[in-house]
Amino acid sequence: MRSTQRDVGPKSVLGRAFALLGCFTVADAELSLAEMSARTGIPKATVHRLVGQLAEWGAVEQTPAGVRLGMRLFELGQLAPRHRDLRESALPHMEDLLQATAHTVHLAVLDGTEVVYLEKLTGRGGPPLPSRVGGRMPAHCTGVGKALLAFSPTATVAEVAGSELVRRTPHTVTTPAALTRELADIRRSGFAYDREESTPGVVCVACPVLGTTGDVVAAISISGWSNRLDTGRVASAVRTATLSISRQLGAGRSAGPRPPSGGTASASPSRVLR
Amino acid sequence: MRSTQRDVGPKSVLGRAFALLGCFTVADAELSLAEMSARTGIPKATVHRLVGQLAEWGAVEQTPAGVRLGMRLFELGQLAPRHRDLRESALPHMEDLLQATAHTVHLAVLDGTEVVYLEKLTGRGGPPLPSRVGGRMPAHCTGVGKALLAFSPTATVAEVAGSELVRRTPHTVTTPAALTRELADIRRSGFAYDREESTPGVVCVACPVLGTTGDVVAAISISGWSNRLDTGRVASAVRTATLSISRQLGAGRSAGPRPPSGGTASASPSRVLR
Repeated sequence: MRSTQRDVGPKSVLGRAFALLGCFTVADAELSLAEMSARTGIPKATVHRLVGQLAEWGAVEQTPAGVRLGMRLFELGQLAPRHRDLRESALPHMEDLLQATAHTVHLAVLDGTEVVYLEKLTGRGGPPLPSRVGGRMPAHCTGVGKALLAFSPTATVAEVAGSELVRRTPHTVTTPAALTRELADIRRSGFAYDREESTPGVVCVACPVLGTTGDVVAAISISGWSNRLDTGRVASAVRTATLSISRQLGAGRSAGPRPPSGGTASASPSRVLR
Repeated sequence: MRSTQRDVGPKSVLGRAFALLGCFTVADAELSLAEMSARTGIPKATVHRLVGQLAEWGAVEQTPAGVRLGMRLFELGQLAPRHRDLRESALPHMEDLLQATAHTVHLAVLDGTEVVYLEKLTGRGGPPLPSRVGGRMPAHCTGVGKALLAFSPTATVAEVAGSELVRRTPHTVTTPAALTRELADIRRSGFAYDREESTPGVVCVACPVLGTTGDVVAAISISGWSNRLDTGRVASAVRTATLSISRQLGAGRSAGPRPPSGGTASASPSRVLR
């Protein structure tokens, strides 16, 4: 509706290019140049020129209807080492869990106050879940998130506890005190549960994966309908898989597992997890 | 060893940024700024500045030893729609194939003269394969590549047949005439085989996946040791899975499948594949 467009977007070329790439979402897989300009505040002529350069490299593909993210980004993203090493080590064990339990299996890492899903194998007849490979969820309401937080440094936990603990269901833990209490329980037992805290009707059990230095690097979970998945029965399967992956990643091969730095944890990962 | 560095790399900011991102490989997951400068010909001071900007956005992560590709690229790459839709539709059927046959299952698309692997589920005790999610292989020597080529437009086939058909094993098809003959066979039967053509001792059977317009969009294969995998026995399982995925993608829902444009194919995908 604006007759003249104000140039309000980022100013550096790279900043603008990333702003354009950041326009795309699952729902908006294809956008017109006008839409990209409107979303970023970058003048349309500049959008046109930058999209041309991005397309040259394969970061975007031009289609009759507009622009979409390109295959080259997928290829490059697969080279990100944090993802690749974890996925390669974890996937065979995730396949075992799917076969043994027939429930949905997730692999996730912590990034800020959120988890990022690196892999997902979907059980037959399981609930439709909001998770997606490459997608994010708040850490405080997911099994994988709480398994990761329980063995993370105190500063990481403080960042999450100090952020807004969004209520996603009536069961979501939304106070720092309740979250801190639950993380202490998880440190003692080694198991994190999501009891309909992220999606109504869906439960989950998760365990941490340790890396070469004994630090927590990822978490694996099994999810299902609350009336069909007995989390207590599959918990030991999840732990068995995460112990195997941790061993494969070399946890404990170095100087040995470290407790969460500066933490008040009653148990270090080493004592609980092996 | 050079005392003065010549500025020989790409000149545009975006071109330079992509050249830096393109430095990383599976073997070189972490690089120093000096190494990145040497590989791209971009002066070290510029590398330093651009890496800072790339890190700000999460495209790279700075580590004590240097620089590595970042999680944000993985997340963005997962949004590339061609990959995402195919993977979501195909993965449950790939899990079925793995469970039914216990052999390694691949999902791949064609890009130029190469295939790009979108997904890989590894069978227990299977051969170590050079394939990797996000990795590439020449199309002419792989089952998925030949399944894709057989139902691709004539121009695509001509591009591959006209390129160097690299010999990877004594069994690799390396002449345009032999490749063209084999693609005609695949169009008739609907099955593509790799008989130790990409890796010695490894065989594979592949079938095409059709998209909404009836065009070939991907291929699925089963691979294994030549003395353990009877490709004839699992071929119908692969076709069953690819027919299911094609139906799910909506093949034939539109105006109907199209034969390879301008092709001399004796059968269109529609006649062979349903």
